[in-house]
Amino acid sequence: MKTTLIALVIVPLLVLSFISLPAKKTIVFFGDSITEQGAKQGGYIKVLEKMLQDKGLDKSYDLIGAGISANKVYDLYLRMEDDVLAKSPDAVVIWIGVNDVWHKRTSGTGTDADKFVKFYNAIIKKLQAKNCTVYLCTPAAIGEKTDYTNELDGDLNKYAALIRNIAKANNCTLIDLRQLFLNYNLKNNPENKDRGILTTDGVHLNEKGNAAVADEMYRVLSQSFLK
Amino acid sequence: MKTTLIALVIVPLLVLSFISLPAKKTIVFFGDSITEQGAKQGGYIKVLEKMLQDKGLDKSYDLIGAGISANKVYDLYLRMEDDVLAKSPDAVVIWIGVNDVWHKRTSGTGTDADKFVKFYNAIIKKLQAKNCTVYLCTPAAIGEKTDYTNELDGDLNKYAALIRNIAKANNCTLIDLRQLFLNYNLKNNPENKDRGILTTDGVHLNEKGNAAVADEMYRVLSQSFLK
Amino acid sequence: MKTTLIALVIVPLLVLSFISLPAKKTIVFFGDSITEQGAKQGGYIKVLEKMLQDKGLDKSYDLIGAGISANKVYDLYLRMEDDVLAKSPDAVVIWIGVNDVWHKRTSGTGTDADKFVKFYNAIIKKLQAKNCTVYLCTPAAIGEKTDYTNELDGDLNKYAALIRNIAKANNCTLIDLRQLFLNYNLKNNPENKDRGILTTDGVHLNEKGNAAVADEMYRVLSQSFLK
Amino acid sequence: MKTTLIALVIVPLLVLSFISLPAKKTIVFFGDSITEQGAKQGGYIKVLEKMLQDKGLDKSYDLIGAGISANKVYDLYLRMEDDVLAKSPDAVVIWIGVNDVWHKRTSGTGTDADKFVKFYNAIIKKLQAKNCTVYLCTPAAIGEKTDYTNELDGDLNKYAALIRNIAKANNCTLIDLRQLFLNYNLKNNPENKDRGILTTDGVHLNEKGNAAVADEMYRVLSQSFLK
Repeated sequence: MKTTLIALVIVPLLVLSFISLPAKKTIVFFGDSITEQGAKQGGYIKVLEKMLQDKGLDKSYDLIGAGISANKVYDLYLRMEDDVLAKSPDAVVIWIGVNDVWHKRTSGTGTDADKFVKFYNAIIKKLQAKNCTVYLCTPAAIGEKTDYTNELDGDLNKYAALIRNIAKANNCTLIDLRQLFLNYNLKNNPENKDRGILTTDGVHLNEKGNAAVADEMYRVLSQSFLK
Repeated sequence: MKTTLIALVIVPLLVLSFISLPAKKTIVFFGDSITEQGAKQGGYIKVLEKMLQDKGLDKSYDLIGAGISANKVYDLYLRMEDDVLAKSPDAVVIWIGVNDVWHKRTSGTGTDADKFVKFYNAIIKKLQAKNCTVYLCTPAAIGEKTDYTNELDGDLNKYAALIRNIAKANNCTLIDLRQLFLNYNLKNNPENKDRGILTTDGVHLNEKGNAAVADEMYRVLSQSFLK
Repeated sequence: MKTTLIALVIVPLLVLSFISLPAKKTIVFFGDSITEQGAKQGGYIKVLEKMLQDKGLDKSYDLIGAGISANKVYDLYLRMEDDVLAKSPDAVVIWIGVNDVWHKRTSGTGTDADKFVKFYNAIIKKLQAKNCTVYLCTPAAIGEKTDYTNELDGDLNKYAALIRNIAKANNCTLIDLRQLFLNYNLKNNPENKDRGILTTDGVHLNEKGNAAVADEMYRVLSQSFLK
Repeated sequence: MKTTLIALVIVPLLVLSFISLPAKKTIVFFGDSITEQGAKQGGYIKVLEKMLQDKGLDKSYDLIGAGISANKVYDLYLRMEDDVLAKSPDAVVIWIGVNDVWHKRTSGTGTDADKFVKFYNAIIKKLQAKNCTVYLCTPAAIGEKTDYTNELDGDLNKYAALIRNIAKANNCTLIDLRQLFLNYNLKNNPENKDRGILTTDGVHLNEKGNAAVADEMYRVLSQSFLK
């Protein structure tokens, strides 16, 4: 009698539970202070979580912020085992580059272009070896002026171009935040301000910036990864 | 008898000579290594001299090169008495700015924007006090790529913008070489090369560069100064 | 009657007042943020004022702080008319150099050694032309470690050496704060700390630093200027 | 009969040959342009080879230069598999650090102190995992002045101190070239020249510099590795 119950009721339930509860997928957001703030109240990762909730997808995805202030590509390389691979992520969204450019000016320790490419490639190789889907973001802005007079625009554009090439070479999907921010500012920054449109200080996201980044990430991720 | 000769022959000759030989006007070209090279064989100042010759104006104008390699606005300020005012110039064409930006990267001794403006203004004031007509050039290029990925494009654009404002504020005519080079490259640099279009190395002029600069300077000077 | 009173009483008093009240002498302290802080509560200029009071000399000397944060030699040159010469000083104590070195690292806009010397000389010439007695201070410290491992020690020593030469060349008395700080730290900083001995942050003076600077300035000024 | 010959003559010869011909030991010299030049005619590695020859040790040791111009610790890390581990070295002499400091000034891409330590440690760990004996050199000089006025002395001393700590932490033998050069210059550079004592240009070795480095390396290696 008991055995029958188990056979008739519990086993099917168990089977069902396995069908209806697939393993959650983990997405790690790997970056610098922009991503560190993105994991806090109002940050772009929090906005993404809310978007997933609204779609009823929050049970299926775990979003993990792995941003540390002042990080360059070297730092990501050094801490990727502990902060990314240890989470067994299914996808990793890498957003790095601002400090690789900025630190040239502020501390003399920016990143050579050749080393930027080599260490970025090394990170991707290690992630892909673990079957992670890797997304690459271009650095959005250091200053929001639209006439290319932000002091570091040239170098930032150069590193954005490097990242576009790295994405191609490694078959990674690109999330082109640099292009997104430039386009948005061309429309919405008629006074050519250096901050206050999508950022608070030219670099870190304000509310509109967090929304714009979350929207773009959702758009790209939903084409390939989110279902 | 003698007196008659003087009256009849020499005096008219002297009068004629004053009519046919007005004082030559002096134009000093004041700048950095680009101008230093501009005064050499094939340089833009030599091309300008040839243009004046072709128009029969070479007797009327003295062109003096006063360019010294590695100069920034500070250097111009320090040597303007000896190298410019001592020549009693009627016009001065100032072309500075590349090293003010470049030295930030290569030696940590570039020029702060506020100091660039203040010393530039001080130079102009001193020249105008001597009744010089002052022309300001924007820095043409550090790299000839057209997609704003030359490493220092942002800062160079910023200093070009500063110079446009300085020109306005001091009623100086602008010779906008930055704009000229950008426009030329957009048409003639389809492969987005960083050198070899108007420059040999991204900064210093090749033959076409010297011709383009001489043409533009002639165009602007002839509107206001050359007759 | 009234006239007699004036003649007998007031006139002698007036004469006396001119005898007993020689014109106060003015000393301007010309520098950067260290001097800006030096003019505030507890700052080295305030300590010097107290020392003059204690010696009954405060009626004879006016101490004026003319320090502005982030200043380099260029800034002193640009504002010396307004901030120094306009005060008709009898003596000027110049303390500059930290930012000329530091800004090479933090913003790429430090001061070339040759320009440092030329602008410093130009400042001294203008002051001496007005019969000012000029005192030169060497920059005290960027970091207080005693084993020459403060990041900018080499360059700071180089600029201190430049200032010692400038003082000699212009017959200015030197106030060698760099040497003073090194000697003091060799005795009092056995743990090789980078701050907290004479400074709060490696650069700006703490209480002991303000006392040490005031003592040294008093010592040097009293040999030649204070009576 | 034939078998007897083999037994009596050839076998003992073979045995002898194994006794008298132990495997050669390989030492890789891993570094920047100083080491790249060290492997050329007159370079310190060539001097070391000559010293081994003179001692009759050249049959026992293979010296391999693995220096590449402009290398920083990052570059060593990136190319250590191909250029060092692929040679199966018994010992590796690492000499790096000059560009990690210098590039802060000349290109804004020097190495942060924390990254210098982390990547250096990572290199050592990988080498020690292959049973290599690892020797660490401190960077000798950027400028030979003895009064600590070489522009980058402070930072170079700081990185030399980092390397001394890295050696201790990883049980590596230190070859303290910084100390060697300072001591030598204090004795032999009375005029406080910035080059020409042990270097041609303040950084790269002249004949005396190559001899001094070879001597010191021989001294240290012979205490622990060479027999």
